Amino acid sequence: MIALIMAGGSGTRFWPVSTAGKPKQFLPLAGGRSLLAETVARIDGLTPPERTLIVTGEAFVQRTRREPPSIPPENVIGEPLGRNTAPCVAVGTAVATARWGGDEVMLVLPADHFIGDRRRFHEIVRAGEAYCREEADLVTLGIRPVAPETGYGYVEIGEERRRAGDVAVHAVRRFVEKPDRATAERYVAGGRHLWNSGIFLWRLCVIREAIEKHVPGAAALLTAIEGVGTGGLSAVLAEAYPRLPALSIDYAVMEKAENIATVPADFPWSDVGSWNALGDLLEEDEEGNCVAGAHVGVDTTGCIISSPSRLVATIGLRNLVLVATQRAVLVCPRGRAQEVRAVVERLREEGREEYL
Amino acid sequence: MIALIMAGGSGTRFWPVSTAGKPKQFLPLAGGRSLLAETVARIDGLTPPERTLIVTGEAFVQRTRREPPSIPPENVIGEPLGRNTAPCVAVGTAVATARWGGDEVMLVLPADHFIGDRRRFHEIVRAGEAYCREEADLVTLGIRPVAPETGYGYVEIGEERRRAGDVAVHAVRRFVEKPDRATAERYVAGGRHLWNSGIFLWRLCVIREAIEKHVPGAAALLTAIEGVGTGGLSAVLAEAYPRLPALSIDYAVMEKAENIATVPADFPWSDVGSWNALGDLLEEDEEGNCVAGAHVGVDTTGCIISSPSRLVATIGLRNLVLVATQRAVLVCPRGRAQEVRAVVERLREEGREEYL
Repeated sequence: MIALIMAGGSGTRFWPVSTAGKPKQFLPLAGGRSLLAETVARIDGLTPPERTLIVTGEAFVQRTRREPPSIPPENVIGEPLGRNTAPCVAVGTAVATARWGGDEVMLVLPADHFIGDRRRFHEIVRAGEAYCREEADLVTLGIRPVAPETGYGYVEIGEERRRAGDVAVHAVRRFVEKPDRATAERYVAGGRHLWNSGIFLWRLCVIREAIEKHVPGAAALLTAIEGVGTGGLSAVLAEAYPRLPALSIDYAVMEKAENIATVPADFPWSDVGSWNALGDLLEEDEEGNCVAGAHVGVDTTGCIISSPSRLVATIGLRNLVLVATQRAVLVCPRGRAQEVRAVVERLREEGREEYL
Repeated sequence: MIALIMAGGSGTRFWPVSTAGKPKQFLPLAGGRSLLAETVARIDGLTPPERTLIVTGEAFVQRTRREPPSIPPENVIGEPLGRNTAPCVAVGTAVATARWGGDEVMLVLPADHFIGDRRRFHEIVRAGEAYCREEADLVTLGIRPVAPETGYGYVEIGEERRRAGDVAVHAVRRFVEKPDRATAERYVAGGRHLWNSGIFLWRLCVIREAIEKHVPGAAALLTAIEGVGTGGLSAVLAEAYPRLPALSIDYAVMEKAENIATVPADFPWSDVGSWNALGDLLEEDEEGNCVAGAHVGVDTTGCIISSPSRLVATIGLRNLVLVATQRAVLVCPRGRAQEVRAVVERLREEGREEYL
């Protein structure tokens, strides 16, 4: 198997810890290691480092090469600009096809997700891999929803296609964009909907064909990449990227293709989409707060506190996010953590680059 | 006239900005200057610097001498340990009596209060001074209450004793400790109660006699101080202070003496007793927050934000105190700002001196 780690995130949602110079995948949000290092460790045993590709922004190639030192430097590929995940998958597909041929199965996974049970993750991926070897389908891992999340997309499952032990592969009936609360509650109760994880499995020739068919301009890119060696790659990308559309692989391919399947997965998972998600990742202390750093709380509970280098003292607080860095302090209700983007936007508009 | 500035505060209520090494009077809470410097500026025109005494903790003598450089160094007196305001007033009284004789009028004022209208303050003090020259009374400035504060003591006024223009001097019927909310509301509505400001006026011989009569052990201290020069003062204090009771001048003298009068004062005043008080001192910005430092707020109002060196970003907050320093961040509802003491207490118990 081959792995493609998508590490193109810009990370405004974890401001002020994540910044333009240090996007989310480099943050140790779930413990001592960065999310990227966790991701590389997660696939250990599924693919060898020589067959793991990482696609990231050009500015982060050097840092990415240092971060998971097991990956060969030439396997870290820099994008000249961010164009969402469809071009990223196209690049990974073409590079992998050129190196290892189109019959290999490729696991595609974001660099900045959390998965709580690595053994179970391997079992699910192995089942999906086996399915992909036999079927010309595009497979997405679908997470069994544990709450009516409105921040995730969902996939509706169809009939069972294959089963190995307690892992099944299902057809996908359709993709659903982020639903409203009532709809999400129905989905969770109904048992026919899964969170769309953004983790994929497919044979290289299968995704290659789907990209050619569905992503405008990608066919030429695929051919161009396959025609040059590692040395010529960056010139090809510099030439092609500005003309590619910024589309997600979900929107550009998965929602349009017919040959979609899903492996329902029951491991703990989070896309770590905002500070609020740390409530799922970090263990609560005895007062019911998730704390990374030093905290003294009087009558404080349900808070998420991240402050590596200074003490956070709180009195009479409930369900807030509190983040302190050298440059800035962020305080907001957990339910509004997504709005950090608005703060970052405002700072950008006001030209206060020193905080970004 | 003579002035005695009491600068003995320890300042746990403004943690983390105030610390054991930097008590409240050294903080620029109401603007660019420290509260102490503001206090010295406040009496400019009432007493010359040579006739202004400052009593502070021994550890802060050097710093205090640098802070308001107009005051002669020998006028800054160090207490070997904190013993509340009664011993402090005794020391000031004895030093002043030895230097300038007992007939002078002394204005006593805390180093860490806020007064919003200096001209009006001077008018009120001048009226009190004139009264003191003729009457052997202990005069306290009483502030017309603008809200039913439960954090202040009150004085109940009696008959009018004298009037000059729009400033009257009244007898005091009694002192009232911090009342409950309902009582405070009655006081404000009734118009017969004033906030006890802790700012006093009296002739030196009058307060000297009252101290001799009411403060245990102070008579010997007064005599000893008057018997030595500036050079011998610190030895006298080191000897006497450990045996003196820690009592406030209000409790020890004002509440017991019979010859008490008050000048009702209508200038904006605050004892700056907690972070919440900054809401009275600082002007609100257009979003209704009082900010000292850099702030970006989304849907944030009624907050008090103090952060000299880093950006504070807030989303969806109401009526919180947010303070950020190099070492610590404090967040609490405005109504619970007094409980910062509990945080400081906890840190002390846990031996985390680096934050104190």
